[in-house]
Amino acid sequence: MGVAEPSGRLLAESRVETPNLLGPDASIRAIIAAARDIIKASGATVSAIGIACGGPLDRKTGVLHKVPNLPGWEGICLTKVFSEEFGVPAYLDNDATAAALGEAMFGAGRGVDHFVYFTISTGIGGGIIIDGKPYRGCGENAGEFGHTKIVPDGPPCNCGDRGCLESLASGTAIARIAREGLQSGAQSVIREWMCSPEDVTAELVARAAAQADPFAREIWSQAMRYLGLGIANVVNVLNPRLVILGGGVTKAGDLLFAPVREVVRERAMKALSCEVEIVPAANGDLVGLMGAFAVAMEGLESC
Amino acid sequence: MGVAEPSGRLLAESRVETPNLLGPDASIRAIIAAARDIIKASGATVSAIGIACGGPLDRKTGVLHKVPNLPGWEGICLTKVFSEEFGVPAYLDNDATAAALGEAMFGAGRGVDHFVYFTISTGIGGGIIIDGKPYRGCGENAGEFGHTKIVPDGPPCNCGDRGCLESLASGTAIARIAREGLQSGAQSVIREWMCSPEDVTAELVARAAAQADPFAREIWSQAMRYLGLGIANVVNVLNPRLVILGGGVTKAGDLLFAPVREVVRERAMKALSCEVEIVPAANGDLVGLMGAFAVAMEGLESC
Repeated sequence: MGVAEPSGRLLAESRVETPNLLGPDASIRAIIAAARDIIKASGATVSAIGIACGGPLDRKTGVLHKVPNLPGWEGICLTKVFSEEFGVPAYLDNDATAAALGEAMFGAGRGVDHFVYFTISTGIGGGIIIDGKPYRGCGENAGEFGHTKIVPDGPPCNCGDRGCLESLASGTAIARIAREGLQSGAQSVIREWMCSPEDVTAELVARAAAQADPFAREIWSQAMRYLGLGIANVVNVLNPRLVILGGGVTKAGDLLFAPVREVVRERAMKALSCEVEIVPAANGDLVGLMGAFAVAMEGLESC
Repeated sequence: MGVAEPSGRLLAESRVETPNLLGPDASIRAIIAAARDIIKASGATVSAIGIACGGPLDRKTGVLHKVPNLPGWEGICLTKVFSEEFGVPAYLDNDATAAALGEAMFGAGRGVDHFVYFTISTGIGGGIIIDGKPYRGCGENAGEFGHTKIVPDGPPCNCGDRGCLESLASGTAIARIAREGLQSGAQSVIREWMCSPEDVTAELVARAAAQADPFAREIWSQAMRYLGLGIANVVNVLNPRLVILGGGVTKAGDLLFAPVREVVRERAMKALSCEVEIVPAANGDLVGLMGAFAVAMEGLESC
């Protein structure tokens, strides 16, 4: 969480652990306490609160639906909790849309009419900006890039379907594929960095791939190919000027951007691929926080 | 071509053959002569001309680029030709975008905020309507649904890539797959309807599939599965309220709509698939003509 000026300049930030086993009440109390601390530390008067949260959720009522990573939070009206606690309006949005809006206001998307944002993290989410504003679709669920099908009969996905981009190229997918390979006896430098295959992460796969470990390179380049195909499909549909990539897996830097750019250049329609740039989120590690802040700004503007 | 009132009511229409071997000059002369005839027959005073044409083209200047099906037409400014000839403004647009606009103004998309249009014909094209207006993307090339990848290493496509929706589910693709099967000796009722495998069309495959011909059913249902996947991906990206399908292949009716609806219901995200309807173009065989007319109306309105 953070406190920022309307310009986007951060005055204070902090991070609080909210283990699921504590349940929503204890987590919300911990968040409120930490928020009070940074507001005090910043010396600022807060005029609105923005919340970026994994969906599905109802942005207009501020209520969470059944969010996969937040068991027990269903039905909680987060905006009510925070606006009552702090006596200012609170606004809620899907984390990927919020991140896209944050990039539009304070990041790589400033001044860009049409762009898309992909978050490549535990899962793969997306946000769409059209004419500088979030495009949400008829049910506010647009941008499910992670669940576009890349391999019709591919691996099972969390969503219940198969072959989704998320099941092939998310951090979780990269780790799962490496884990399965290691459990089947594959040789890799990754073994030296972990106690058991359970410990393998996408970050370790990226690090090993950077060291030219053949096992890791194969897994990494296949995932980058699928990620590039998923982006090429969105480029062919929306003809955006910019594709912004954020989320933990993008910390791999050129190891991710170079192959992804190549796949998009090769496989999107030429007239579209030659116009699009693929860049990292300028808000970097703060992409979620700046997204939440953009949600507050958008909420105030629409009042 | 046709003459219509602003309400969309057609006063006169006609069809003129423009064989490629005549070249653009003779074709344009034939179109102009036929246009004079129907204007006279309609008794109307024409105030604008709309032209829907296969792309790529430059809508703003009215100039055709290198259109695959119109050899020799590159660089021709169609709007200049027609506005000079008839002394009224002429407007040009991509045929799929025009068809989508025609459905928005006079068809199944009336009053619908966000919808997409797929034309399933020789190729597969697309148009996107957002907030009731065409969304064209940053280079006016959005909606290339036919070139989203459905099978990463699938069959070669006209665009130079592989595994595009168009290479798997267009009329040309369905005919090609059937032809290859027949040439390899497959048994099918289609053989009774043709002199040589060269004669096979998607329409014959649909007719044989409707008669439970096992060979044709297999090809048809595979194509419908891919078409459903391509639509599911666009639904996951854009969360439209409506998907309108037009073009020659959709004349198969329920044989097409039933399996496509089932695949989209199964494979798009539930929150998105439960909200979307998949319907035939209300303008039917006139989807191109009503599209051209919508282009004229849009041009006049934007003056």
